Amino acid sequence: MVGPFGGVIAAKLLNAVLLHPARLGEPIAFTVNYAGPIADGEFELEAKPARTNRSTQHWVVELRQGQETAATATAVCAARRETWSALEARFPEVPPPDALPRHPTLGRAVWTERYDMRFVRGALELSSPPAPDQDSVSTLWVRDEPPRPLDFVSLVAISDSFFPRIFVRRPVWAPIGTVSYTTYFHADSAMLAAHGDAHVLATARANQFRNGYFDQAAEVWARDGTLLATSHQIVYYKE
Amino acid sequence: MVGPFGGVIAAKLLNAVLLHPARLGEPIAFTVNYAGPIADGEFELEAKPARTNRSTQHWVVELRQGQETAATATAVCAARRETWSALEARFPEVPPPDALPRHPTLGRAVWTERYDMRFVRGALELSSPPAPDQDSVSTLWVRDEPPRPLDFVSLVAISDSFFPRIFVRRPVWAPIGTVSYTTYFHADSAMLAAHGDAHVLATARANQFRNGYFDQAAEVWARDGTLLATSHQIVYYKE
Repeated sequence: MVGPFGGVIAAKLLNAVLLHPARLGEPIAFTVNYAGPIADGEFELEAKPARTNRSTQHWVVELRQGQETAATATAVCAARRETWSALEARFPEVPPPDALPRHPTLGRAVWTERYDMRFVRGALELSSPPAPDQDSVSTLWVRDEPPRPLDFVSLVAISDSFFPRIFVRRPVWAPIGTVSYTTYFHADSAMLAAHGDAHVLATARANQFRNGYFDQAAEVWARDGTLLATSHQIVYYKE
Repeated sequence: MVGPFGGVIAAKLLNAVLLHPARLGEPIAFTVNYAGPIADGEFELEAKPARTNRSTQHWVVELRQGQETAATATAVCAARRETWSALEARFPEVPPPDALPRHPTLGRAVWTERYDMRFVRGALELSSPPAPDQDSVSTLWVRDEPPRPLDFVSLVAISDSFFPRIFVRRPVWAPIGTVSYTTYFHADSAMLAAHGDAHVLATARANQFRNGYFDQAAEVWARDGTLLATSHQIVYYKE
């Protein structure tokens, strides 16, 4: 609420690493801290490799606008090798996306026009009376609008495309802003390319809202039950 | 496994922010990326405020040893105000710490001598035959040994004191190393001071192990059911 959709800022910062000629491997972990508002207009991105090892590479990224640092980020890239693997999280039981209506876009949040969201539960109903026993869990199918093949850049944005948990838990409008956002990528570029432009299944919940900050934990799944990413964020709220 | 206990490295990096004379507010979010091995001996820590706002402050931290960057970190500090609050995660049903035996320390991991751990479930039993249906969940009471009043520095270390999830899920020794670790602090310094040196209840699980990397999501609770911190990490494993 103090600038553009945080997911697109995260995507820009991650892309600065992905486009860097010195980059080795694919992203494993990415953290962005939103330090201040970003105005429409020019900005400068600087991605620096902090350390390059045999199979991992560590990055520090900064987004500046004018004289100010508006966001900082760190990324870890790595070359993966085939190993013993196991999935422990569970794909939610949900109807297919075609069986659900598209959620209306929100006039006050233009970025929602860039996503096709189909809620299984936990949609935004700010006009409803507050339900004191409401939880903050949302589960939905989501894809870029217009459709766009999934890649790391769109995945990091989609992982931040959830409505703020506080509005699901307590349907009253209030100023909010993510301060720190982390994504772990469980999929590689070949898996994302194979996914194409289909909807992903996304689910998010909060652990706690306390004195101005709440957290969010989220999972993003392919339709075939592949866990693509897990993400976490902590969000400022005003009242 | 490529240097000292990651929790104490995280504590050192966070403390560089906490001790900085320009620091405002208390830590809300902290991320450390372990970039390379750290040898016994001298190292240099540099904490720089990247941006200071009215109620939040963003930090970038670097740990160097010799000519190399061995770890990078970012922190967000903030002044909290009283707001509507709600706890959504659930405190696990567990026996009190006094009712459980202390877990033996591990000879090959000297840092385990610095913690009193009492497992409710998911202890380390590397001599057991692998159980294919085993999950990676651990729940335990833990406190510093010798006892030490809880503060942000000990909390960030305790949040990283879990045995690696892969050893709980698949009890076979393998080389591992955390690459990125994030903690969100839900408690302020007054709450931590009130907690004193009692055990905290800690619980952790993995979502996925895949081709060299697994994640961990964890919660740290006070005995009275206060959620003190949530943390996440992604960990390299070799085979």
